[in-house]
Amino acid sequence: MSYALGIDIGGTNTKFGVVDEAGVILYQDSIVTSVYSTPHEFIDAISHSYQSHIDAEMQKKISRIGIGAPNGNYYTGNIEHAANLKWKGIIPMAKWIENKFSKPTIITNDANAAAMGEMIYGVAKGMKDFIMVTLGTGVGSGFVANGKLILGHDGFAGELGHVIAIRNGRLCGCGRKGCLETYTSATGIVITANEILMQSKEASLLREAHTITSKSIHDAALLGDRIALQIFDYTANILGQTLADAVAITSPEAIILFGGLSLAGDFILKPTQQYMDDNLLINYKGKVKILSSAFQGSDAAILGAAALQ
Amino acid sequence: MSYALGIDIGGTNTKFGVVDEAGVILYQDSIVTSVYSTPHEFIDAISHSYQSHIDAEMQKKISRIGIGAPNGNYYTGNIEHAANLKWKGIIPMAKWIENKFSKPTIITNDANAAAMGEMIYGVAKGMKDFIMVTLGTGVGSGFVANGKLILGHDGFAGELGHVIAIRNGRLCGCGRKGCLETYTSATGIVITANEILMQSKEASLLREAHTITSKSIHDAALLGDRIALQIFDYTANILGQTLADAVAITSPEAIILFGGLSLAGDFILKPTQQYMDDNLLINYKGKVKILSSAFQGSDAAILGAAALQ
Repeated sequence: MSYALGIDIGGTNTKFGVVDEAGVILYQDSIVTSVYSTPHEFIDAISHSYQSHIDAEMQKKISRIGIGAPNGNYYTGNIEHAANLKWKGIIPMAKWIENKFSKPTIITNDANAAAMGEMIYGVAKGMKDFIMVTLGTGVGSGFVANGKLILGHDGFAGELGHVIAIRNGRLCGCGRKGCLETYTSATGIVITANEILMQSKEASLLREAHTITSKSIHDAALLGDRIALQIFDYTANILGQTLADAVAITSPEAIILFGGLSLAGDFILKPTQQYMDDNLLINYKGKVKILSSAFQGSDAAILGAAALQ
Repeated sequence: MSYALGIDIGGTNTKFGVVDEAGVILYQDSIVTSVYSTPHEFIDAISHSYQSHIDAEMQKKISRIGIGAPNGNYYTGNIEHAANLKWKGIIPMAKWIENKFSKPTIITNDANAAAMGEMIYGVAKGMKDFIMVTLGTGVGSGFVANGKLILGHDGFAGELGHVIAIRNGRLCGCGRKGCLETYTSATGIVITANEILMQSKEASLLREAHTITSKSIHDAALLGDRIALQIFDYTANILGQTLADAVAITSPEAIILFGGLSLAGDFILKPTQQYMDDNLLINYKGKVKILSSAFQGSDAAILGAAALQ
């Protein structure tokens, strides 16, 4: 049996773990990414945990290392200009980790890693064509076709969050307008909530909330709050329309939603499926499932990184 | 040296030819598709031409047959419910042709065949990630990622013509509204021309034209007709915006335009490149070339079909 070391580098925390072929995490740890002023100190910290907690027997069984990181590029092995990391410019992270641990190492961005995680260990097991959509602070995606990640000629494919959902719509962090991310990210849905609350006079539990989040909207929806349902409906409509266009390109078997909004379960999955089906070209109608990730927790990132190969 | 027989089945004509490894067409012929009331009579007619004109020596060298056909499905080998063909329902065309000619046979839709043709013999030689867009009566596309066609789980991927370019825009033959095809197909551009002519009071050569076509708009543009330029600009804007979204999904090295509008050369290529670049996410800006097909003629379809493998 061969094991993989999965490393998920996030702007705040970095999680890593040893994963067996069945997707069982045998050991895991995490460090605070942002306290390390250089990538080398950061790598030393991972190495320290690795050497202290993983015995020689297990170390020998680890045959490869996978890294998921913001702006991680599969082709170059670099982290390139990641907005959420302290270390600026181009960092040859895969090479440095490979040198440190003496194991073949590959890197890709976090959404691509999540897609691989679902394919190897999760709900996309056995699928060769699917789309992974990660809904968080930003919106990322990983497209799998013919059983392989679509990386694009430069390694930067899969930016569904920056497909224009509404032309001349909300201003996006990328400087353009109407990106899907501005409606379906954690901040996007809060903007939608505030807009709907302002336009409506209807009573809502959300009017009394100190801060509105995906979670408080979900909580209100569970209690039958009509404004909360309207927020999910509005968001699902935009997501469903955009997914329908993506389906016309790659014709996937399923679309898997992870994190953020997707934690609202059927409140978002059902209307998104409905709006997507309503907008699909007839060839695709009724053929594309919208699923929730198998890993709605902190293990997902480690499994995703460990699945890279 | 091994040859391929390429068969391009169109609603009106079917062209076929023997192609060598360098993409030279050694023999070609065509028949009128629509006169054959059954697929078997149609196959017999191709076989008759084949047996009469291709000598035993050359027949022996043909190692495979590729077919491009409307709604041709790579996975099933069938032509499924093709609107432009007389033969209704599901036709196991690849199997029947394979049986008749005793050569391994595969089928796909015409745009996918065109993409393979560009990759094997044309401007996409050496590329592993590109998008082929066929602009004709309809708008088709073939997406190549990791050096392989994206077929989707059901073989129906690559319907860029039915991505929504303008939400609630023009009514499409598919029953939905605002599909790219309604703006960039042969009929789409004529509708645009008529709309612009109605809205403007400016003189134009097109006002005197009996019938407006892509070609007459191109001819007027060559003479500096400002309305003609405006028609190309409007169309390029919509095409460029839609391509920018497609780039965010597959991050191609190039987008290759074939037929119809693309025959207007720089009148359409240059503004489309400009509008696409204006609309691209910064990661992709300046990295994606818009090219014209290497085969702007009747050979393209045969080469495309012959390239299938």
